[in-house]
Amino acid sequence: MGGNYMNAEIITVGTEILLGEIVDTSAPFVARNLANLGVDVYFQDTVGDNYERLEETISLAEGRSSLVVLTGGLGPTEDDITKLVLAKHLGLNLTTDEKALTKINQFYQSYELGKPANADIMAKYIEGSTVLPNEKGFAVGMFLKTPNCDYLVLPGPPVEMQFMFNKYALPILAKLTHGNAVIDSKVMRFFGIGETELEKDLKPLIDKQTNPTLATYAKRNEVTLRITGSEKTEQDVNSLIDEMVKKVMEIVGQYFYGWGDDNSLAKVVVNLLKEKHLSITAAESLTSGMFQSRIGNISGASEVFPGGFVTYSATAKEQMLEIPTEIVNKYGVVSKETATYMSQNAQSKMKTDIAVSFTGVAGPDELEGHPAGFFWIGLSLPDGEVLTKSVNFAKARNEVRDYATKTGFKMIYDNFK
Amino acid sequence: MGGNYMNAEIITVGTEILLGEIVDTSAPFVARNLANLGVDVYFQDTVGDNYERLEETISLAEGRSSLVVLTGGLGPTEDDITKLVLAKHLGLNLTTDEKALTKINQFYQSYELGKPANADIMAKYIEGSTVLPNEKGFAVGMFLKTPNCDYLVLPGPPVEMQFMFNKYALPILAKLTHGNAVIDSKVMRFFGIGETELEKDLKPLIDKQTNPTLATYAKRNEVTLRITGSEKTEQDVNSLIDEMVKKVMEIVGQYFYGWGDDNSLAKVVVNLLKEKHLSITAAESLTSGMFQSRIGNISGASEVFPGGFVTYSATAKEQMLEIPTEIVNKYGVVSKETATYMSQNAQSKMKTDIAVSFTGVAGPDELEGHPAGFFWIGLSLPDGEVLTKSVNFAKARNEVRDYATKTGFKMIYDNFK
Repeated sequence: MGGNYMNAEIITVGTEILLGEIVDTSAPFVARNLANLGVDVYFQDTVGDNYERLEETISLAEGRSSLVVLTGGLGPTEDDITKLVLAKHLGLNLTTDEKALTKINQFYQSYELGKPANADIMAKYIEGSTVLPNEKGFAVGMFLKTPNCDYLVLPGPPVEMQFMFNKYALPILAKLTHGNAVIDSKVMRFFGIGETELEKDLKPLIDKQTNPTLATYAKRNEVTLRITGSEKTEQDVNSLIDEMVKKVMEIVGQYFYGWGDDNSLAKVVVNLLKEKHLSITAAESLTSGMFQSRIGNISGASEVFPGGFVTYSATAKEQMLEIPTEIVNKYGVVSKETATYMSQNAQSKMKTDIAVSFTGVAGPDELEGHPAGFFWIGLSLPDGEVLTKSVNFAKARNEVRDYATKTGFKMIYDNFK
Repeated sequence: MGGNYMNAEIITVGTEILLGEIVDTSAPFVARNLANLGVDVYFQDTVGDNYERLEETISLAEGRSSLVVLTGGLGPTEDDITKLVLAKHLGLNLTTDEKALTKINQFYQSYELGKPANADIMAKYIEGSTVLPNEKGFAVGMFLKTPNCDYLVLPGPPVEMQFMFNKYALPILAKLTHGNAVIDSKVMRFFGIGETELEKDLKPLIDKQTNPTLATYAKRNEVTLRITGSEKTEQDVNSLIDEMVKKVMEIVGQYFYGWGDDNSLAKVVVNLLKEKHLSITAAESLTSGMFQSRIGNISGASEVFPGGFVTYSATAKEQMLEIPTEIVNKYGVVSKETATYMSQNAQSKMKTDIAVSFTGVAGPDELEGHPAGFFWIGLSLPDGEVLTKSVNFAKARNEVRDYATKTGFKMIYDNFK
């Protein structure tokens, strides 16, 4: 891979970000995407909605970077000055994109407060630039080539910015960095392995990376791997990526569970259960409803999930699930036996195909001689067999609960994929 | 308020942040705190772990800002260059903080992998600066006054950085900006009112703001208000803030539920129930365990929470909670009557003092003629009375569930505070 651009700089414009009232997610998004294209980002800058300081920052950036990305400040208020400052700085005029103007006028026709005085600015772009339509809002973006430096101007709201970037800016940048090559990428998701360990295991593949490239990202208790390739045709790039996926799966396939940036173990498992027509319930002690809450967050979960139990106290386990007192007394609340009874009895009470149970020590104190972070999971299968697993995950309370919940989903995935 | 500093600049050092692999939360944290002190932040910059570009950025910053805050790059690896670059740039030497070195040596004595080659750098500081101890890690921070500009150097990991900032950096900065005045602040938390509405309601107070100042921050479906004052003594600043709290409470007191940045409705309610010796259970349809999961996340929740029900399907409501089929058939799953039965029966089955129920339409599709986002909550009180409330919150699925969960907690807070 590689590219024609030596290096890029991202300027975030907005007083709310400068003063820390909003955490900026736009610069990281753009930086990651530029990295995937092989473009080096050397600097990021944040400035407020101030003419002099914004122009000072643009001057500085164009003097040291061959691509300057500006995000924010494209709206209709007095504070939105990005286009004005850049146009004046370059000695160029603003002109109107008629399509965008029509869209603005149509919207404000039916708007009870009327059209804001300055709304038309959102349809303006600097002459000579390529307009990037805003399908999620009104303010157009633009890409401008100058002899000195190229400028990419994007709106501030993340939904508008990301959609515009992916659909309109990325193809322009890809063409500039990769000529007529087609670039594409796939994101693999892993649970049960840390980022450092994944990188170590994949080192032979990562070290040789030129095309496709491999980049790992740590998420909350999981890791994703983005594989980005560049080839002459869509078909070629797909086979290139698929070959790499195969190599990755040979090494760390046991931790893999799904694809894409916008995905989760809960989503993968609910969809898997829907596909296999398997219903599920849960009996949660340690996780106290977190597993069932994540199921409930997936649209259409009701097809496979009738409900379940939160049995936090020992008494609740005995009363709600009719777990024999002598089992709890003999083996303890945090035990293989209690986990087994919990999932079995939840399954038979709710008459579901499968059931999962969670019992453990959330912390900070230890329990029954087990350290904080130790837990048992039970998984009752349709034939009545119960699989169990114990894990010791010595982290903060809520991380233990998250990890246990995800471990439960992963056990289901591994058994029914 | 106001200050001696004209303006500040924050430099974030780290390639992972520059490439978008980590979202930087340190710069916003520092910026908010400087704003509270009356210090203007005009620029933020992010650079990677690169000698030339970091020194270039420091040169630029000290030329235009009277306080330069650097975060990150204080660790023991080759990439951690912040102290080295700043010392070289200023022509000053690094010297060792013996206390920090002893702490490092003691830790690595018992560390199975041994002490890293470069670990001692974490105990070093630039001669002439005030050492800021790192109670959550090893790398010391520092505050350095020079004729030209002051430098505040902080570690990258947010936990270390925030603790060090609050305990050691803030008093130094407060003294510089406010002389011998004592500054203090209180954070009030609100639910059920948006940030815009809160600002509108408090406009008469905010517009006059000089001392104390008021700043609102939007959180997920809630808002916080920070009141910051400055007076000669601790007692004076406290009465100043308390007077403002009273005025705020007169206007928007009905939405208030607690204090502090690190707090939540779940925490406030669990602690309230503990204090009043009231036990609680829940029957969750819409929220599918989210309410109980948030209870379970509070340390010591088992004192008041034995467990509860996730009754997602109509059948589960009938079987688990023995809600008469004819009630569900007559009034619908999403109804005041079903919510009432759900909380009443959960309460009597679990023999708790109070019980809360959630039934509604998570979306995206409507249900029983109710739009997505419509829900009923039932709250059974110790005397058997049941309070109910319906809300229409037309947002995305997971936001509806979050809002319903918080509405439940707020109903409990309002009744038992």
